[in-house]
Amino acid sequence: MNATTTAQVISPEALLQHFQGHRSLTRRVIEAFPEKDFFEFSIGGMRTPAKLVTEMLSIAAPALQAIANGDNNPYIEPKISETKQAYLERWDEATDLINDNWKKLSVEDFGEMFNLFGQYNFRVIENIFYIIDNEIHHRGQLYVYLRALGITPPFFWERER
Amino acid sequence: MNATTTAQVISPEALLQHFQGHRSLTRRVIEAFPEKDFFEFSIGGMRTPAKLVTEMLSIAAPALQAIANGDNNPYIEPKISETKQAYLERWDEATDLINDNWKKLSVEDFGEMFNLFGQYNFRVIENIFYIIDNEIHHRGQLYVYLRALGITPPFFWERER
Repeated sequence: MNATTTAQVISPEALLQHFQGHRSLTRRVIEAFPEKDFFEFSIGGMRTPAKLVTEMLSIAAPALQAIANGDNNPYIEPKISETKQAYLERWDEATDLINDNWKKLSVEDFGEMFNLFGQYNFRVIENIFYIIDNEIHHRGQLYVYLRALGITPPFFWERER
Repeated sequence: MNATTTAQVISPEALLQHFQGHRSLTRRVIEAFPEKDFFEFSIGGMRTPAKLVTEMLSIAAPALQAIANGDNNPYIEPKISETKQAYLERWDEATDLINDNWKKLSVEDFGEMFNLFGQYNFRVIENIFYIIDNEIHHRGQLYVYLRALGITPPFFWERER
């Protein structure tokens, strides 16, 4: 990674910390679900927690892998065995993959166009914001699921482990 | 606003567009609620749409006003008359206030510490991310409310008016 020598609205390092802070919170939301509800609960015909988290896992680390290495592999939903523990292990693997690939990005890279998954042709920063925002969006939905189950979710503003 | 002459992870102009794109989507989510449900609907003891949107209105434009003008006024929830139309009008006023105050920020300002509402002492970019993320989080919850009401929400990825 190039050193950031000029003033930045946000530096690559701070944006990674922001991203991983959100991912740490999402991990605690996954942990808060009872095992059965993680795979079965839903409101209004929406996806189960497991399906929403599968989407997050199919985007975040694969996207960073693709961006940092310039590949255009298509979007694939991973098959994950039907235990919450398997999801948490995948989550932690993704955390490391994101960190490793992030280091390969220069400040200039964030402004480059990149056709993510051979389908989403936007600037790298726009694709990264989409990944973060999509996770916040679906995690907000998981907060409603938890409340409907009578479970108090973690505080939204607590990001560090 | 100072011109951005060096490479940026994200420029102030692009971050404003990102922010307002989200706000445009939230406006359409407000519009999607039936009048009565906007003020009464809830799941799991959570706040009504009106209360969640009141929080968004009490943060976004007042925060930008405070940051751009260096004041430490406390957080105040506005009183808004009980019609959806009144909320939409407040929303549009906030859009203009955010645009006007954003122009006063230099790239360097985003890295400065600022004690928002005399209470949240973080870098300006961190406070701005908090505002955007909090809106995405609660809007995600409003998507569940709409689905539970049998209403199809707008597409998450459509941001422009």
